[in-house]
Amino acid sequence: MKKKLDGINVLYPTPTTIVGAMVDGKPNFLTIAHIGIVNHAQPYLISVSLGKVHYTNAGIKENKAFSVNIPSEDLVVETDYVGIVSGKKTDKSGVFEIFYGELGNAPMIKSCPLNMECRLYDTYDTPTHDLFIGEIVETYADDSVLAEGKVDIKKVKPLLFDMGSIKYWSLGDVVANCWRIGKKLKKK
Amino acid sequence: MKKKLDGINVLYPTPTTIVGAMVDGKPNFLTIAHIGIVNHAQPYLISVSLGKVHYTNAGIKENKAFSVNIPSEDLVVETDYVGIVSGKKTDKSGVFEIFYGELGNAPMIKSCPLNMECRLYDTYDTPTHDLFIGEIVETYADDSVLAEGKVDIKKVKPLLFDMGSIKYWSLGDVVANCWRIGKKLKKK
Repeated sequence: MKKKLDGINVLYPTPTTIVGAMVDGKPNFLTIAHIGIVNHAQPYLISVSLGKVHYTNAGIKENKAFSVNIPSEDLVVETDYVGIVSGKKTDKSGVFEIFYGELGNAPMIKSCPLNMECRLYDTYDTPTHDLFIGEIVETYADDSVLAEGKVDIKKVKPLLFDMGSIKYWSLGDVVANCWRIGKKLKKK
Repeated sequence: MKKKLDGINVLYPTPTTIVGAMVDGKPNFLTIAHIGIVNHAQPYLISVSLGKVHYTNAGIKENKAFSVNIPSEDLVVETDYVGIVSGKKTDKSGVFEIFYGELGNAPMIKSCPLNMECRLYDTYDTPTHDLFIGEIVETYADDSVLAEGKVDIKKVKPLLFDMGSIKYWSLGDVVANCWRIGKKLKKK
């Protein structure tokens, strides 16, 4: 039996990210799991959805740059903290050790195993949210999450956000190989 | 030590979805994990990124409707299959038992525990991909994945897609409560 859920979004879980940007000349960080993958071609475009009430939006628009940092499970306290405290009232520039990349104005978090440095490609406007579309200029990875030069997601230990339970979840085990297991159904 | 990864997208894992649409008058299904959450307000907007080469794109544009279905782990073979076989060559209308909702032209998959019926809200164009932005008209859930009327994601058993490993992964355990665990760092 199917029940109707009044048109809510159930597209979860999504990877929790920490978005970094310069706001009023200072690095600021904000937790966002309402992310998106816009294309699959170089330059790679990804999106982050920020309610218009957020402090960070003006900084992204002004500097046309932001970062998307992927925290591990061991950063869950700091990740949650920068999601519940607004930059309007609290200076969050000291929460993380920061580095900069090619753009020079997209602050990134050293302790996050993965960082994507983004040039603002476009802002897609909705009545309540700015969807910032970033062109990935460079991607940085900790040695510790790489295996043969590629990201090993099991080592990343991403925090998977689910709005239904309002919890962060861990990644489980491999279910199957993609683009392979379905071949069973192909007609000979 | 940080290593540079040539600007690749590492925003994974994302929930694997099966996008349904009418194409040439027939239901067609296509696996997409390059999804996005565009806002967090009613009507909810979500996105799916489809390479322009896909068979489905014309159908979504013509009918201005599509569905986003969330398969469970037990549907991994069928999910993978509709991702590797093109509707150009293979009729996929019989792979799943189908139902329709309010729009009447967004085919949905009965065996998927969650279904979002979408009106095409906008198409965001990129050189290689159509980003279809859907307004969720109605959401359907199997009784079996609900607990007190809300989606229990552990029961959904979503297939989490990772491009680095080219594998489907399962959901793990709860790490922490969101908007709560970070309060520890708040200054008194």
